[in-house]
Amino acid sequence: MILYHCLSARSFRPLWTLEEMGLPYELKVLPFPPRAFAKDYFDVNVLGTVPFLVDGDTRMSESAAICEYLAVRHGPTPLAVRPDEPDYGLWLNWLHQSDATLTFPQALVLRYGRFEPPERRQPQVADDYAKWFHGRMRMLDAHLTQHEWLAGGRFTVADIAVGYALMLAEVIGLARDFQPQTAAYWQRLKARDGYRRALAAQGKAAAEQGVKPGF
Amino acid sequence: MILYHCLSARSFRPLWTLEEMGLPYELKVLPFPPRAFAKDYFDVNVLGTVPFLVDGDTRMSESAAICEYLAVRHGPTPLAVRPDEPDYGLWLNWLHQSDATLTFPQALVLRYGRFEPPERRQPQVADDYAKWFHGRMRMLDAHLTQHEWLAGGRFTVADIAVGYALMLAEVIGLARDFQPQTAAYWQRLKARDGYRRALAAQGKAAAEQGVKPGF
Repeated sequence: MILYHCLSARSFRPLWTLEEMGLPYELKVLPFPPRAFAKDYFDVNVLGTVPFLVDGDTRMSESAAICEYLAVRHGPTPLAVRPDEPDYGLWLNWLHQSDATLTFPQALVLRYGRFEPPERRQPQVADDYAKWFHGRMRMLDAHLTQHEWLAGGRFTVADIAVGYALMLAEVIGLARDFQPQTAAYWQRLKARDGYRRALAAQGKAAAEQGVKPGF
Repeated sequence: MILYHCLSARSFRPLWTLEEMGLPYELKVLPFPPRAFAKDYFDVNVLGTVPFLVDGDTRMSESAAICEYLAVRHGPTPLAVRPDEPDYGLWLNWLHQSDATLTFPQALVLRYGRFEPPERRQPQVADDYAKWFHGRMRMLDAHLTQHEWLAGGRFTVADIAVGYALMLAEVIGLARDFQPQTAAYWQRLKARDGYRRALAAQGKAAAEQGVKPGF
């Protein structure tokens, strides 16, 4: 398998999953954003986004979908919740919520607070979506008052997918407003060997490939 | 099952799936947005968003996740692509892309072009994300030059999930820039009995429950 990746971008979700599962892969690190700094990459992924996974004839671009795919197709693994388990719907919900609901407002905060040139920045929009992000954390905050993990009573790829939204919050300064149970959950996630191996793997590949952090 | 819904909102995805599968359900229609006009609804869904599905002990809030759940858990049905089929990864990718990549820019166009009070509207942001939406359609446009449906060589819930993004584009005026193969695909989707039954079901329930369209 080949995973196209930018440092600490959403492609960290599949990278972390590959490390937790111990699957063999090749990591290609791109400067951020690739649509500006690696225009050849459009020949690989027509959207110019990361992640992009190549696995035989399978091509995937959605970070949470890749986590689900790896766990189901390259299992069996306790990282997947099976359709016959009571938490199957809950598991799918967290996987989808991780990106469609939790990462999306953060992308707005980054774009209009940091990435756009000064004359195109929109402090109101960055502020609107910082608030939106915290509002959308309510379901996670409530769940974590009663559970250690998101679904199935164990660590799964749903924790990786949602955990990345917490990692991004830390990078962009939104983690200081986490509720205590959510801050503790994020510390549990960061303490995992698989998370540390993924961090080390991206650092090693970036150094070998001469790519510097983009944000 | 109970599905909480707003007229032609993302909850149309699970409604359409329920109709395609012929599953029994109760439809509760809320004024849009429920966080402003149906504050009691926060007692049902802490996020105040639609959709919300109640199926026994399962509670779900993510539209594309519910489509996947219904097809897998309430199958077997050709609307799901099985993990042992070659297109399984592609199917998951479209399901996730439908909301995280295709609906999200449209939500920005609606918010800053239409829903916010005039003094908080941001024409630049609405315009940025109208362009972003069309850019993010490239993978779909390319796929549809070679395929009739999104995965598995047949109509599946991935077509419902992505089809809703096209429905929303039509509602907010972005469909006029569809490429011909994408416009033709959208016509194929609209011609389905299941789509028409879902439209009729939301109209009937809204009339009975006295709810008017919100956008």
